[in-house]
Amino acid sequence: MPQYTPPLRDMQFVMHEVLDATTLLKELPPYAEVDADLINQVCEEAGKFCSEVLQPLNASGDAEGCHYDAATRTVTTPKGFKAAWDQFVQAGWTSLTADAEFGGQGLPHLVGSAVHEMQNAANQAWTMYPGLTQGVTELLNAHGSAEQKALYMPKLVAGEWTGTMCLTEPHCGTDLGLIRTKAVPQADGSYKLTGQKIFISSGEHDLADNIIHMVLAKLPDAPEGSKGISLFIVPKFVPTADAGVGERNGIFCSGIEHKMGIHANSTCQMTLEDATGWMVGEPNKGLAAMFVMMNGARLGVGMQSLGLTEVAYQNALAYARDRLQMRALTGPKAPDKPADPILVHPDVRRMLLTARAWAEGGRFLAYWISLLLDQSLHHPDAEVRKDADDLVSLLTPIVKAFITDNGLQATNECLQVFGGHGYIREWGMEQFVRDARINLIYEGTNTIQSLDLLGRKVLMDGGARLRKFGKILTDFIEEEGVNEAMQEFVNPLADLADKVQKLTMELGMKAMADKDEVGAAAVPYLRVAGHVVFAYAFARMAQVAQRKIAEGDDSPFYQAKLQTARFYFGRLYPESAAAIRMARSGAKNLMDTEAVFA
Amino acid sequence: MPQYTPPLRDMQFVMHEVLDATTLLKELPPYAEVDADLINQVCEEAGKFCSEVLQPLNASGDAEGCHYDAATRTVTTPKGFKAAWDQFVQAGWTSLTADAEFGGQGLPHLVGSAVHEMQNAANQAWTMYPGLTQGVTELLNAHGSAEQKALYMPKLVAGEWTGTMCLTEPHCGTDLGLIRTKAVPQADGSYKLTGQKIFISSGEHDLADNIIHMVLAKLPDAPEGSKGISLFIVPKFVPTADAGVGERNGIFCSGIEHKMGIHANSTCQMTLEDATGWMVGEPNKGLAAMFVMMNGARLGVGMQSLGLTEVAYQNALAYARDRLQMRALTGPKAPDKPADPILVHPDVRRMLLTARAWAEGGRFLAYWISLLLDQSLHHPDAEVRKDADDLVSLLTPIVKAFITDNGLQATNECLQVFGGHGYIREWGMEQFVRDARINLIYEGTNTIQSLDLLGRKVLMDGGARLRKFGKILTDFIEEEGVNEAMQEFVNPLADLADKVQKLTMELGMKAMADKDEVGAAAVPYLRVAGHVVFAYAFARMAQVAQRKIAEGDDSPFYQAKLQTARFYFGRLYPESAAAIRMARSGAKNLMDTEAVFA
Repeated sequence: MPQYTPPLRDMQFVMHEVLDATTLLKELPPYAEVDADLINQVCEEAGKFCSEVLQPLNASGDAEGCHYDAATRTVTTPKGFKAAWDQFVQAGWTSLTADAEFGGQGLPHLVGSAVHEMQNAANQAWTMYPGLTQGVTELLNAHGSAEQKALYMPKLVAGEWTGTMCLTEPHCGTDLGLIRTKAVPQADGSYKLTGQKIFISSGEHDLADNIIHMVLAKLPDAPEGSKGISLFIVPKFVPTADAGVGERNGIFCSGIEHKMGIHANSTCQMTLEDATGWMVGEPNKGLAAMFVMMNGARLGVGMQSLGLTEVAYQNALAYARDRLQMRALTGPKAPDKPADPILVHPDVRRMLLTARAWAEGGRFLAYWISLLLDQSLHHPDAEVRKDADDLVSLLTPIVKAFITDNGLQATNECLQVFGGHGYIREWGMEQFVRDARINLIYEGTNTIQSLDLLGRKVLMDGGARLRKFGKILTDFIEEEGVNEAMQEFVNPLADLADKVQKLTMELGMKAMADKDEVGAAAVPYLRVAGHVVFAYAFARMAQVAQRKIAEGDDSPFYQAKLQTARFYFGRLYPESAAAIRMARSGAKNLMDTEAVFA
Repeated sequence: MPQYTPPLRDMQFVMHEVLDATTLLKELPPYAEVDADLINQVCEEAGKFCSEVLQPLNASGDAEGCHYDAATRTVTTPKGFKAAWDQFVQAGWTSLTADAEFGGQGLPHLVGSAVHEMQNAANQAWTMYPGLTQGVTELLNAHGSAEQKALYMPKLVAGEWTGTMCLTEPHCGTDLGLIRTKAVPQADGSYKLTGQKIFISSGEHDLADNIIHMVLAKLPDAPEGSKGISLFIVPKFVPTADAGVGERNGIFCSGIEHKMGIHANSTCQMTLEDATGWMVGEPNKGLAAMFVMMNGARLGVGMQSLGLTEVAYQNALAYARDRLQMRALTGPKAPDKPADPILVHPDVRRMLLTARAWAEGGRFLAYWISLLLDQSLHHPDAEVRKDADDLVSLLTPIVKAFITDNGLQATNECLQVFGGHGYIREWGMEQFVRDARINLIYEGTNTIQSLDLLGRKVLMDGGARLRKFGKILTDFIEEEGVNEAMQEFVNPLADLADKVQKLTMELGMKAMADKDEVGAAAVPYLRVAGHVVFAYAFARMAQVAQRKIAEGDDSPFYQAKLQTARFYFGRLYPESAAAIRMARSGAKNLMDTEAVFA
C-alpha cells in the first residue's frame, strides 16, 4: 500500500526561500499578519490530516467506489469518507481561505494551494468534494448578490453544505453554447429549471446536509450560442430564511458514471425537473461569471496532478531502495546482498528524477501563481494588481495542461519502476495513473487550454501578457548574467526565451493568413511555454541553492536542488526542441488530409 | 461500445505492395506455394472471426474478469471465452504456422503476425491464451527432444492443450539469476520441482484439457546466477503414453492478480509442490533455450500494441466524425448542423493522425520482421539466413519497446478525442489504455529492451548488425536520391541515419570509460532508433504510393499514404531531435545525484 509524507521542507523552500512569500504577502492588507511560522504550522497540521486520515482511504475508496441507489436517487460514498469529512469540517479546513465576514480564516490562496497539493496527493477523489465547494464560494463572492452571499456562503465556508458546477450536457461539453437546459422566470423572481446535466462531480453524496449547484441554463428569449447562457443557484434543498434545510428541490441524481479512475468521487448525471433556481449576476452573462469558478478549478486540477506526481515519486523511490535486482553495470554496490537495489540503475534514476523534477517545477509554478492571485486580488496598487492578474491569466492554462501532462508521464514512469508489480492493484501505483488521466480532460481539455494560451492569452492581446512575463525573465537573466556558476541554468533559459519569442511572432504572422495555424500549433506551443516557465523555476531554485551553499550551508538539500536542476536541463528541457519543430511544422500536415479522412 | 474492422486493405498494401512478400516467400522451400490469394483469404477469414467472435467479448471480459476458486484452485474465464476458444480451435486457427509434421498448416510467420494483429485488436486478454501456446510449440520445436515433440506438440498445435512460460518469482523478474525454484533429479529421469512462480499469464483456466508449463528452475548443484538455470516441461496433468490426460501434477494456481487491465486473462501465482517435470535441452542452459520463447513473445507484445493502436484509432475516428462541437476556426463546415464534427479541428486531427501513423509504421515494422524471421529460418542460403537473423535480433527490442511506447501514447490520444466520454467505461476507450499499459512491462520492460538494443545488439558486436541495417538504408536512399518527389521523405531519413551513426560511435566511446553511460543513454537511444526504422517505413510506403500515382492510380488510398507520411515527418519524427539530446546528455545528470537520493 502506498504511503505519503507531506513534503514540508520543499514546500517551505519554495514559499519562503524562493518566492519570499511572506514579504510579498505583507504588502497585501488582509494578509499583513501572515508570517512564515503561521504558514508552516498550518501546512504541518494539514499534512498530518492528509497522511493520517485521507491517504488511508485512497485505495479503499478506489476499490469500493460510490454506490447509486435508483429508488431514492441518492449516492453513498465509500466507507470512511463521511467520517473523514466530519473530522475535516470540525477542524475548520473548509474555511481556510474564505473571508472572515463569512466565517473564514482569511488565509491567502498560497496557503490554500499548499494544503490542496497535500490533500490531492493523499486522496484526489475525496478532495474533489471540498475542492468544488471552495469554487462555489469564490464564484458567489465575485458575482452573488448580498442576499445570496449571506444565505449561502457561511454554510459553504463552514462545510455544512457543499457545492458543484453544472455545465456539461450529453451533447455538449467544450461547446457550452449548445446547452439546452431551460430556465423560466417565475413571478417571485426565481426560475424553474428543466434539463439534463452530465459529468457533475460530487453532484450527489452523503457527506453534507445540502448541495448547492451552480447551473448554466438558457432563458426562454436567450440569444443563440454562448452569449445566451445564464447562471443559477439551484440548491438540493431550498434553504429556509434562516439558512436551514428546507424542502427538497427538483434536482436529482439520475445515475453515476463508471470511470477509469477517481472511483470514489461521484460523477453524476443530474436531472432538473422544474427545479427552483435563482439567477447569479446578469442575464446571459453566465458563462463569463462561471469563469471565476472555472479558472479556480483549472488551478485546482493542476494541484491534483502535482499531488499525484509527488506521491507517486515517494512510493517509487521507496520501492527502488528496497527492490534488489541485478548488479550495477559498474560493479556490485551491495555486495553483501544477492543483488543491488534497483536505485543503482541509471534508467531507474531517470524515471524517478523525471517525477521529482516535474513535482518540484510544478510546485514552484503552482505556488507562484497562487501568490500572484493573492496579489491580483489584494495589492493596494492597481497596476501591481493588473500585472499580477495578467500573469495569472497567462499561466493558468500552463498550470492546468503542462502539470497534468507531466503528471500522467510521471505516474506512468513511477508505475514502471515497479515492473510487473506496478500493474497490480494492491501496490497502488496504477491507481495514480488512472486518477491522473482525468486531469488532462476535465475543466477544459488540454487542447482547450492550449488554444486558450496561444489564441486568447498570447496572440489576442498582441503579446502584451507574454512581454510582461518576458520582462521577468530578462530581469532575472540580467541579474545572473555575470555569475559563472549560474550559466548552466541561465543560458538554456535565455536561449529558450528567445526561441519562444520568435516562435510566437512566426505563429502570429501565420495565424493572420490561416486561423487553423493557431489550432495546429497550440498543443506543442504550450509544451514549449511550459518549459520556459520550468526553466525559469529551476534556475531560480538553483540560484537560491547556490547562494546557500556559498554561505557555507552544506546540507544535502541544496545540493539536491542543483542536481535536480541539472537533470531537468539535461533530460526534460530537450523536449522543447522537438515541440518547437512540431509547432513550426504548420497546419498543412494536419488539414491537407482529405484522403486520410475520405 | 467499440467496433473493429480488420484493416485488410492496409495489411495487403504492406505485405504485397511494399514488402513484396510472396516473391520473397517463394525462395523459402516450405512456403513456395504460398501466394497472395491464400494470404489474403486467410487474413479475411481470420478478420471475420476477430471482429465477430472475439471483439464482442472484449468489454464484457474486462468487466467480468477471471474468477479464482480457492477450494479447487481453479480459474474460470469470463462468459463466452470458452465457446470462442472452441470455435477458434475447431476452425483450426491454433495450427496456422505450425509444421505439418505436428498437424500444422505450415504458413509463414508473416501470416501468423497479420492474424495476431487482428486478434489483439479485437481482444488482447483472450488472445494471450493461444498466443503463449504458440510460443511453447516454438520452444519445443527448437529445444525439445524427439519424444517431447511427439508427445506435446500435436496437442498444442491442435489447441487441445495450452502452454505457459513460468519465469518470474516474487523476488525476481528481470533478474532471473535469483530464482529459487528447485528441480531434484529422480531415478526415472524426471525431476521433482518445488517453488513459487508469479505473474504467469494463462497459468490456470477452463479453456483446454491440459496446460503445459515451461518452467525455469535450478538443479541442486547448479552454479550461481543465470548460468545455473534449467528448463523443464511441467504439465498440469501428466500425459499418458498415448498423449491422453493422465494424473494431476503438483503444479497449482494459488491465486490470481487484480490488475490495471487485461482483466480477462488469468495472471496466476503458481505453486509447485513436488511437481513432476522433464528437462528440455541441456542442464543449466535453460535461460538461453527460453529465449526462443521470449523473443517470440517480445514480437507478440509489439503486435498487441499494434492491434490496440489500430482499434483505438478506428473508434476515435468514428467519434470525431459523429460528435458535433464548436465551429471550425476557418468558418462553419456543416452549416446545417448546430456545430461542426470535431474532425474539423486541427488538434483532433493531430491526435487521430498520431494513432494512425503509429499503426501504419508499426504494421510495416512488424510484418517486415516477420518476413525476416521466415527468411532466417528457411532461406536456402546460409548467408541470407544469417543476415536476416541479425536484423531480427536488432529489430526485436524496437518492435517490443517502440511499438508499445507508441501504443500507450496512441490509445491515450484516442481516449482524449472523446473528451470526458473517453474516461467512462462504457465507451471502451479507457480499456484500451489500461490494456496497452502492460505491454511496456512484460516480456522484459522497455528499459531492458533498450539495454538489449544498445548494449547487446549494437555495441557488443561492434556495430556489425547496425551496419547491415545501415546498408539497407543507404541502398534505398541511393535508389531514390535523384527522385525529386521523394526528397521530402528521403532527406530526413538520411539525416537521421547519419545522426544515429554518430550517436552510436559517441556512446561506444563513452561506454568504454563508464558502463553507466550505456544505461543512461539506452532508453532515448531506442526512441531514436525507432524513428530511423519508422522514417524508413514511411519513405518506403511513400515510394510505392508515388509510383502508383505516377502510373495513374487516383484512389485516395495512395494519397492518404503520402499525407500520413507527411504527418509523420512533420509531427512525430521531430521527437528524435529531443531524444538525441537526451541520449547525449550523459550519465552524470542521473548518477551524480547522491544528494537527491541521500
